[in-house]
Amino acid sequence: MQPFFASLIWLLIFGTTAAFSQQMRKSDEPRIAPLSWWVGMKNPNVQLMVFHKDLGTRTPKINHKGVELLKVNRVENPNYLFLDLKIDAKTKAGEFNIVFYEQGKADIVMPYTLAARDTKQKKAQGVTNEDFIYLIMPDRFANGDPSNDVIQGARETNLHRDSLYYRHGGDIQGVIDHLDYLQDMGVTAVWLNPVLTNDMEKASYHGYAATEFYQVDPRLGTNELYRQLADELHKRDMKLIQDLVHNHVGAEHWTVKDKPFQDWLNNWDEYTNTTYKDQVLFDPYAAQSDKRKMTDGWFVPSMPDLNQRTEFMQNYITQSHIWWIEYAGVDGFRLDTYAYNDAEYMAKWAQDITAEYPSMTYFGETWVNGMTNQAVFTEGSTINQHFDTHLQAVTDFQTFHAINKTFTEPFGWTEGVNALYSTLANDYIYKDPTRNVVFLDNHDVSRFLSIVGEDINKYKSGLTWLLTTRGIPQLYYGAEIAMKNFADPDGKVREDFPGGWTGDQQNKFVSEGRNDTENSVFDHVKKLAVYRKENTVLQTGKLMQFVPEDGIYVYFRYDDQKTVMVIMNTNEGEKSIKTQRFAERIQSHTIGWDVVAQREVDINDQITVPGFTALALELR
Amino acid sequence: MQPFFASLIWLLIFGTTAAFSQQMRKSDEPRIAPLSWWVGMKNPNVQLMVFHKDLGTRTPKINHKGVELLKVNRVENPNYLFLDLKIDAKTKAGEFNIVFYEQGKADIVMPYTLAARDTKQKKAQGVTNEDFIYLIMPDRFANGDPSNDVIQGARETNLHRDSLYYRHGGDIQGVIDHLDYLQDMGVTAVWLNPVLTNDMEKASYHGYAATEFYQVDPRLGTNELYRQLADELHKRDMKLIQDLVHNHVGAEHWTVKDKPFQDWLNNWDEYTNTTYKDQVLFDPYAAQSDKRKMTDGWFVPSMPDLNQRTEFMQNYITQSHIWWIEYAGVDGFRLDTYAYNDAEYMAKWAQDITAEYPSMTYFGETWVNGMTNQAVFTEGSTINQHFDTHLQAVTDFQTFHAINKTFTEPFGWTEGVNALYSTLANDYIYKDPTRNVVFLDNHDVSRFLSIVGEDINKYKSGLTWLLTTRGIPQLYYGAEIAMKNFADPDGKVREDFPGGWTGDQQNKFVSEGRNDTENSVFDHVKKLAVYRKENTVLQTGKLMQFVPEDGIYVYFRYDDQKTVMVIMNTNEGEKSIKTQRFAERIQSHTIGWDVVAQREVDINDQITVPGFTALALELR
Repeated sequence: MQPFFASLIWLLIFGTTAAFSQQMRKSDEPRIAPLSWWVGMKNPNVQLMVFHKDLGTRTPKINHKGVELLKVNRVENPNYLFLDLKIDAKTKAGEFNIVFYEQGKADIVMPYTLAARDTKQKKAQGVTNEDFIYLIMPDRFANGDPSNDVIQGARETNLHRDSLYYRHGGDIQGVIDHLDYLQDMGVTAVWLNPVLTNDMEKASYHGYAATEFYQVDPRLGTNELYRQLADELHKRDMKLIQDLVHNHVGAEHWTVKDKPFQDWLNNWDEYTNTTYKDQVLFDPYAAQSDKRKMTDGWFVPSMPDLNQRTEFMQNYITQSHIWWIEYAGVDGFRLDTYAYNDAEYMAKWAQDITAEYPSMTYFGETWVNGMTNQAVFTEGSTINQHFDTHLQAVTDFQTFHAINKTFTEPFGWTEGVNALYSTLANDYIYKDPTRNVVFLDNHDVSRFLSIVGEDINKYKSGLTWLLTTRGIPQLYYGAEIAMKNFADPDGKVREDFPGGWTGDQQNKFVSEGRNDTENSVFDHVKKLAVYRKENTVLQTGKLMQFVPEDGIYVYFRYDDQKTVMVIMNTNEGEKSIKTQRFAERIQSHTIGWDVVAQREVDINDQITVPGFTALALELR
Repeated sequence: MQPFFASLIWLLIFGTTAAFSQQMRKSDEPRIAPLSWWVGMKNPNVQLMVFHKDLGTRTPKINHKGVELLKVNRVENPNYLFLDLKIDAKTKAGEFNIVFYEQGKADIVMPYTLAARDTKQKKAQGVTNEDFIYLIMPDRFANGDPSNDVIQGARETNLHRDSLYYRHGGDIQGVIDHLDYLQDMGVTAVWLNPVLTNDMEKASYHGYAATEFYQVDPRLGTNELYRQLADELHKRDMKLIQDLVHNHVGAEHWTVKDKPFQDWLNNWDEYTNTTYKDQVLFDPYAAQSDKRKMTDGWFVPSMPDLNQRTEFMQNYITQSHIWWIEYAGVDGFRLDTYAYNDAEYMAKWAQDITAEYPSMTYFGETWVNGMTNQAVFTEGSTINQHFDTHLQAVTDFQTFHAINKTFTEPFGWTEGVNALYSTLANDYIYKDPTRNVVFLDNHDVSRFLSIVGEDINKYKSGLTWLLTTRGIPQLYYGAEIAMKNFADPDGKVREDFPGGWTGDQQNKFVSEGRNDTENSVFDHVKKLAVYRKENTVLQTGKLMQFVPEDGIYVYFRYDDQKTVMVIMNTNEGEKSIKTQRFAERIQSHTIGWDVVAQREVDINDQITVPGFTALALELR
């Protein structure tokens, strides 16, 4: 195919950003990344990665007032050019052509769009401790649009709801359809597992093996629908969190099929997995070879590890994230496999995002063991004096480990609820621990209900803690209807939400579809979440905790408005506590209003708490 | 008794510092603390706490050129006066009288001695990572002087070697008698559990319930003998570590029987024990009431908790420590129950000691769980930005917990030797972790041999680690002859060293008295300790550790002189490791010299290590 002819075809399929959104793109299709850009960004510079067969020898020209082509970067692969543009704030928005000349002759033309920024659109609002996050695996929540269940031309066209390794058909429309349900429950932010195209042969459903950076997976919906999801959330004063994967892509990613240059990926003579050992990142005694294996080793063989040390790669990744904020109105980011990335790039990334969107928030997944191991990744952590990651917050795996221990270990000097107490006591090693995302479970770990042996009282105690402790609580879809199961060995923590599919025998989105237990759990979550949403005390209120005694952990949240006392009894049997010990926080209050049971409790002398129960009392 | 007459009697018994050293002092005897002082200290000020019946109304006068009485402090109890003195550097050393006047009439005379400093005496040398510490419980090591086994007039006169709660008769002379034994084994510093008088009714043997601050317990020896111990150590290029207890005294301490003022102790309406919860000291969410209980609660009912917030108490404690350095030539301090003290006082204490003796070292006992929980107490720790403790080092309970796990847990993601690896990886939270004291056991915990199920190979692996890892290794007496037993419930970790008593059926101080196993352990310790003493690589050499794989932990110590490779196989069976992985430290070396077995090992391709064995190889 002649280059010019090819570009004509390309024009046809690239005419609008939506044109290709309902189909899988071929790896060798010409492309420009970012897909489009905007006039009036704080950073006037953008670097276009242009992909087209035999482009590398050509000379590009742009004739659009305000757009300056600063530099043309040629790389090893002749199918790529990297163009450094500067866009004046007065540039007129619209489409223009980038014309490529070979020996003085224009033979490839690629259009590019500079849009006007949508100043009315909510975006980059930031997710804070005022929020309550609901985590959804889109393929498994609700199937709002059966027409996109199978996309012909995709590498994976299987649809098997009876296997947890195939796609089930859930999608973004399914999420939109249930936003009222979530809002009613007190949820204020939705985090979807990655929605970008994963055109992989197997297990494409989970979303962490992207093959495109600028396209929502057609089986989940379109870019427009994703933007509509953000709009629908914003209408409800809710927020959208996008799940980002900096570290790796799917093996079928088009830049992997035809790499811009050899060092695009972290290459090894023979396949080398990461060791998953975060310690080498801070260990003063670490070997260089161990450090390289951790950072440059691949997460799994099917997900090539990106070499984030070149500016070309850095721009390619970072600009795509800015694009999604600006295009769709994303409010927060979750950063997958944070520890495996190049630390210096990630610090630069954070600064670049914050420079463009000062209110934007992001939290990193730090699935590690140990309080220092986790805090070392956070910005301004007092333990990390040598390097500032600029990472605002993390998924708090340390309180997660601790709440697990709380209900699976007998109370001991360091065991049981003492683990939870001790973990929070170490919060001084964070600049601001209240930004951390706390959770009982997520898509990678066993559901909390199974962890606690399906004991509903323990489960509710965990939920009470989740919604009353410091930080930003995150609930995993279905937790509110008591979904259970273990992560190993069969991934049954990613089962479908009953009622999300037309024809489902049960619909647990409505109270009539839930049994008594499920309704009691749902009501428990809702009571606390709605109370939390309506009362600053559980959002920004200070925390005071008392040394656990006799398996009972007492803590308070308090601000100028209100004081909430939480009493967690981790014993099997009923216990009473004397309130005198807590006088410095109870002060002159005499009554506790049980937020869940909606009844008054006399707190003058002592409070009796049933076994495995956590009471949340608003003091009056 | 008339005051003047009383003071005459007091003169008789106070004539020399030695006069009362072989007997217990009565609580109500007149006293001055410090017992004596020196001319030419860097700090010219000293505060004398003078105790004498009805002294409080009197006016003291001192007529000794160079000694200025700056201030007379009167307190609640009329039996006390606190005198602030300033001693000019040109003051003539010697004894002078402090004369107390009542209504213009001199009726009490108390002599006081200002000595010349002994400039030839070694003192305050500091204990560093060049040292190997041997911890001795003096009552249980060797009885060098049976004449002091029972002191008439003492509250406890029982001597029962068949009970671990009574005195056994060991003493300082017994330690002196075995210094050659210790020196031969490679020991360079001796730490004795506290040697001050514990004139308590029960369990006086352990030493942590002092009733005098200026007297060696007569059952252990005399002040002079203690100074002789220091001299004998110094002759051998060895050092003396004194065990200090700032936090509490014995209930029979004379200042407790007749308190200078009500706030001398941390008082409670009803007896209140400390919670032992270190967390409240740094927990940003801690309750004030919990903080008070931790710091001001008593360690046990028989040991009153000193209120360290008054300058009188601070001076009383600090000056006694300076006294022992200057008098006996102590080289290092171990600080008991560090976390329970008033943090601000302890920081001031450290600065005062260092100001007077810049080379002096001290390490605090921090028996806590968690890396941050421990490091927060150390000076300049990166995690502790708000308060500088000025504490140089700690007893490293975190590596202690980890080496326990190494041989009691199966190898897992965080278990087994991975715990040890991870703990050391966190060393970045210390300003200088190489000053921490590492150990396998001590007088408070189960002997390591019992912890590892009496498996001699595991035991030797632990000893190899102890003598090759970073820090200052500390061995508990008898560990070298494979003494065993658990701490709970019967305290059998404080058994007598066989051969320390005349008539003992066995003498394990000599090879003929030890069985083959005991000799092999002794030789193991000696080979490593002597090698460590002779090679800087195991003292100040850098550490490099590799991520453990398959239960095998490999680390290196290296400096400009030498490289030592340690391979710890924590599997039951023999394992081989490929040396290629460690190329960045092995470099061009081809042979490893097994320090213990004294043989060469070919390291060109792989190294085979038997089950539960740690090889220490000097690379050649």
